[in-house]
Order: sequence, then structure tokens, then C-alpha cells
Amino acid sequence: MPTLPLEAIPSHVLAIDIGGTKLAAGIVDAAGTLLDVARTPTHVEEGPDRVLGRILGLSRTLLGRSPVPVQSVGVGCGGPLDTERGLVQNPPNLPGWIDYPLAGRLREALGLPVALDNDANAAALAEFHFGAGRGTRHMVYLTVSTGIGSGLILNGELYRGKRGNAGELGHLQVRYDGDPCNCGGRGCLEAYASGTGIARRARERAARHPESLLARLAPDPRDLTAETVLTALRAGDPVARELWDETLDILAAGVASIVNAFDPERVVIGGGITNFGEFLFPPLRERVEGRAMPALVSGVDICPAELAEHVGVLGAAAVALRERQEVLV
Amino acid sequence: MPTLPLEAIPSHVLAIDIGGTKLAAGIVDAAGTLLDVARTPTHVEEGPDRVLGRILGLSRTLLGRSPVPVQSVGVGCGGPLDTERGLVQNPPNLPGWIDYPLAGRLREALGLPVALDNDANAAALAEFHFGAGRGTRHMVYLTVSTGIGSGLILNGELYRGKRGNAGELGHLQVRYDGDPCNCGGRGCLEAYASGTGIARRARERAARHPESLLARLAPDPRDLTAETVLTALRAGDPVARELWDETLDILAAGVASIVNAFDPERVVIGGGITNFGEFLFPPLRERVEGRAMPALVSGVDICPAELAEHVGVLGAAAVALRERQEVLV
Repeated sequence: MPTLPLEAIPSHVLAIDIGGTKLAAGIVDAAGTLLDVARTPTHVEEGPDRVLGRILGLSRTLLGRSPVPVQSVGVGCGGPLDTERGLVQNPPNLPGWIDYPLAGRLREALGLPVALDNDANAAALAEFHFGAGRGTRHMVYLTVSTGIGSGLILNGELYRGKRGNAGELGHLQVRYDGDPCNCGGRGCLEAYASGTGIARRARERAARHPESLLARLAPDPRDLTAETVLTALRAGDPVARELWDETLDILAAGVASIVNAFDPERVVIGGGITNFGEFLFPPLRERVEGRAMPALVSGVDICPAELAEHVGVLGAAAVALRERQEVLV
Repeated sequence: MPTLPLEAIPSHVLAIDIGGTKLAAGIVDAAGTLLDVARTPTHVEEGPDRVLGRILGLSRTLLGRSPVPVQSVGVGCGGPLDTERGLVQNPPNLPGWIDYPLAGRLREALGLPVALDNDANAAALAEFHFGAGRGTRHMVYLTVSTGIGSGLILNGELYRGKRGNAGELGHLQVRYDGDPCNCGGRGCLEAYASGTGIARRARERAARHPESLLARLAPDPRDLTAETVLTALRAGDPVARELWDETLDILAAGVASIVNAFDPERVVIGGGITNFGEFLFPPLRERVEGRAMPALVSGVDICPAELAEHVGVLGAAAVALRERQEVLV
């Protein structure tokens, strides 16, 4: 990995963010400026080759109208991936992409080097270089949306582990005798504090308190989401408040574990949960302060991600920019 | 940090292991061979200057009779420490050592460069270079004794974090609504699964089951230790078996979290808990397999530390050997 500051590399990249519902691509410079962007639905049900066709369509449009030359391509995509061989290995949000050689296909079609990483790592790199992690060397990025993903920047580098899967911090087990998680484990942070986990726990509480605003906001319990919880919380509903209080304890146990394990300078939290704003950050900071080891937690920032809706494309760009001095697919 | 294999450095070091009850020192070569060793009680109640005197006594004895020249000194000591300035910062097992300039004092008295690290990091380095972690690049060392300490080898280097405190894996919070821990947190692994935590939980169970062998082995509950649990377990006591079963679940939640976070090749477990032998390793492996993410846990070794009673001195030696190409105190 290069240790040069990205800003020193005079480069423009094509950045591609592949999501389960939409594709986004952009032209980004080495300072993280998004010069152009385009989006289209994924239509994941059509399978990888048709989706690849749409990705190439977007890419050619952007390359065709770019006023600057583009040196390489970065891709952020749901994992698991084999980043060295550029394969997508059946991620939950891209069913049927079984060892799909995405990087190789893009390279052949576009004639440019291609670097690929999972979307949580890409987002961590983007926040590290262009967003809330600027100026740190040890940063943990946690994205709390439907699921919980994360990326670890340790000593200024993305830490990948033995096979590139490190940083599954949504699967820190915050209750050893807890609820089963989709991953096969038990008591995982994600099972409780992801959007899905919050909605599941909200449905349980609403069923016990049918008179509560939380319950009345969603007459059909299937409509009860984390957003419903936020609405009820804003209206002062005590049942939503209890649920949120417990959620903060669970998140604080997770973030305190992260602080104790990694001794980071900053924990950057992104994803849908940041919509909870003042309900989230001030009390979470206070609880982590009370739960993490004093020598480790003092001076740690727990702060919101900065890149908002552009984090996917900027993440893909960061992946390409980081790879420029490495062997590429 | 040097990336040379230690074996390539023709070096002998004086290694000093400072514990709360005993001091040990040795002459160690770059391959981890312990050429000579000496021990003496710490008498921590006499304060740091008198203890330093005893450390210097041991050191001079070893240096005086060493047939080989010694290039540097490594020290392993309970944390917190300021490793850069060589200060001991009031560790629980060395009361009164408040910003004590141990490395500087040793350097002045012995005329050799001195490197200092906490005992968990030192032990991790020793296992990595000379013991159960040989041949890996990503290894987590966990020592489960009175407390739970750990050291992280990531990408072949000791990972220290922002201020050298990373790797407090005894304070992963495995029960968000759990028991208070000495660290000020709640539900920490150490509060349940350290020797002290096991003994505390055993006393609770023994009080509920006074007829059990576990209770009868310790008529005075204050005498009930983790060793008592092992004795009762060997004798087939069902109350001890239930307690141990829960302990395995708690440890498995901790180790599964470690696997999911770090994607290591090996998790090396040392400390008094390894006395549980076959009661520990086979069932722990099976439970971690069932709790960690499949893509991460496949191929992970969970294995006992190899260096046994010499890990302290060999750890101190590894600290000195690693530091040889760095600026020393």
C-alpha cells in the first residue's frame, strides 16, 4: 500500500458503487472531489451479466463526457469478495454472483486497471481520506443500517486480516446467551442494534404495549421500522424511549468493546442510524465513556460520518486511489 | 519495527520479567533459547527503588556469568506503561510505581539500551516468534489467569493503537446488561471468565447448591478458586459441569468476537486456564466454530500457548530483540 498522501497523486478515477437496489458511478479526483456522477437501478433479479452491462453503460457515459483522463477504476460491492482475484462471492444483496470475475470483466471492457473492495472497507477508506477520519491513523468506521458493517484503519492502513474479512464488528457478541443472528452466531450487535434488529425489538415491545404510540404508528406490525421508532421517540412515547435506552446500552457495549480492543483515535458512525442525530450521539458518547476503560476512552471521538449519500462512490474512488501503486487485476 | 526475522540478528539480550510476586531474568539468544535464568521474590511492598535494587542484583549476576556479550535489555511489566518514555504508570500489581522511570534507571545502571513493554504484549511477541504463533502473520494471544490480557499481532507486527493500550480483549463486553467489571465497564469477558470471574460465579453456584461437591470442596467459600472447579469437574460434579458449560459459552462468545473482528490465523490461549486442558480446548473450538462467521472461522487454530512458565522472560527477550533497530531509551 502507498503511504503517500492521496492528494499528492495527480489522478482521476472512475468509481463504481454496486448496491442491491441501485448502481452509482462517478469521476473522482485524488482529493475526493466528485466531478460527475450517474445512477441507475441495479435490477439484481436479471443476474450478473445484465447488471454488468448496466454498469458498463454508466461507466462509458461518464468516461465519454469526462474532461480529464481517467487512470483506473475502483469498485465497492457487498462482500464476501476475493479482492486479490477480483471475484464477487455470492453476497446476500447480489444473489447468483458466485465467484463472478467482476474486476476482470471490467478491466477487459474498459481497458483500465480495476481494484475491488467490499463496501464497508471502501466507506472506511473514504471517511479516512475525505471525511470524518481525516488526520487520524487509527480509525474504526461502523455503518449501522439494515445490517452493521465496519472497516478498520490501523496504523494508517486498511486492516484486512488473514483472508480479507476482518472487521465484522456487527458480529461482536454483546450477549453471550443472546438471540440468534443471521450469521449463525448468537447475541451479535447486529441482531439487536441494526435497523432490522431495532425493528424486531420494536415489534416485540409494541405487541406488549398495544396502547403505545409506537404500536399505534404501525397498525400492521410489519410496517414497524427503525424510522417508526424515531417518530415515536420524537413524540415522547415512553415505550419507544425504553426501547431506545436499551439500544443505546447495546451500542455502547459494542463501541466500548471496539475502543478497548483497538485503542482508536476516532470511531466514525455512518448509515441510517445517524438519522437519530441528537438521540444517538450525545447519550452514546456518555455511555461509552462510562463503559470503556478510562485509559483508552479518554480523547476518543465518537462522531458521525461526513460523506452521506456519496460515501459509496467516494469509497470506490478511495479503493482505486489506494491501489494505484499495487499490482492490479 | 524491523521486518527481519529475529533469527537473522546475531544477538543476546538480558530479559527481565517483573511480576507482582516474583522477578525473573534470563539471558536469551535471538532464536528464543533461554541460556540462563534466575528468580527472586519481588517484595512489592518495599516500593520501586528497593525492587529496582533486586532487579539490578539479578541482572548483574546473569551478566557476570554470561559467556556471551549482551547487546540490550528487554523488560516485561504489568501495564499501564508509557513505552516510549519507559515509564511504569501505577499498574495494579505494582502499587506506588507512579510514572516510575524504569527503563531510564536500568539503562543508567547497566549501560545498555532498554526496551519496555507490558507483559501481555511481551507474551504475545514471545509466542509469535518462539512459540505457538510461529509462522503466522495475524495472531491473537489471550492470557486467561487472575485477569484476562491479550496482545495483537497484525500483519506480523504488534498492534498498539493510539497510545499503546490496544488489545484489552478481557474487556470485550459479552453481556451488555451484565455484571460490573473492575475496569468500570459492564459485562466484560474478564468479569466472567478470568480465574477471579470463574471463582466468583462458582461461589454463587456453590451457595445455591451446598450439597454439591463444588461446595463441599471449599467449606470456606473464600477458598473456592478456579482450581476447585477443575477438581470438581474431574470428579464429574454436575454443578461444576453446569458452571463450566456456561464458562465455555462465555469464552466462545469472546473468541468468536475476536475471530470476527480480526480474521486471525491463530488464537493462542495461555495462562492458568490452560490447566483445564481437554475440558477447555476441544469444546471451545466446537463452540467458536458454531458462533463465529463461517467465512472467518474456517481454518482458524485455537491452540494452547507453548512457552509455559518461561513466557515472561522470553517475552521480555522478544521486546528487546524487536526494538534493536529502533531508537531506544
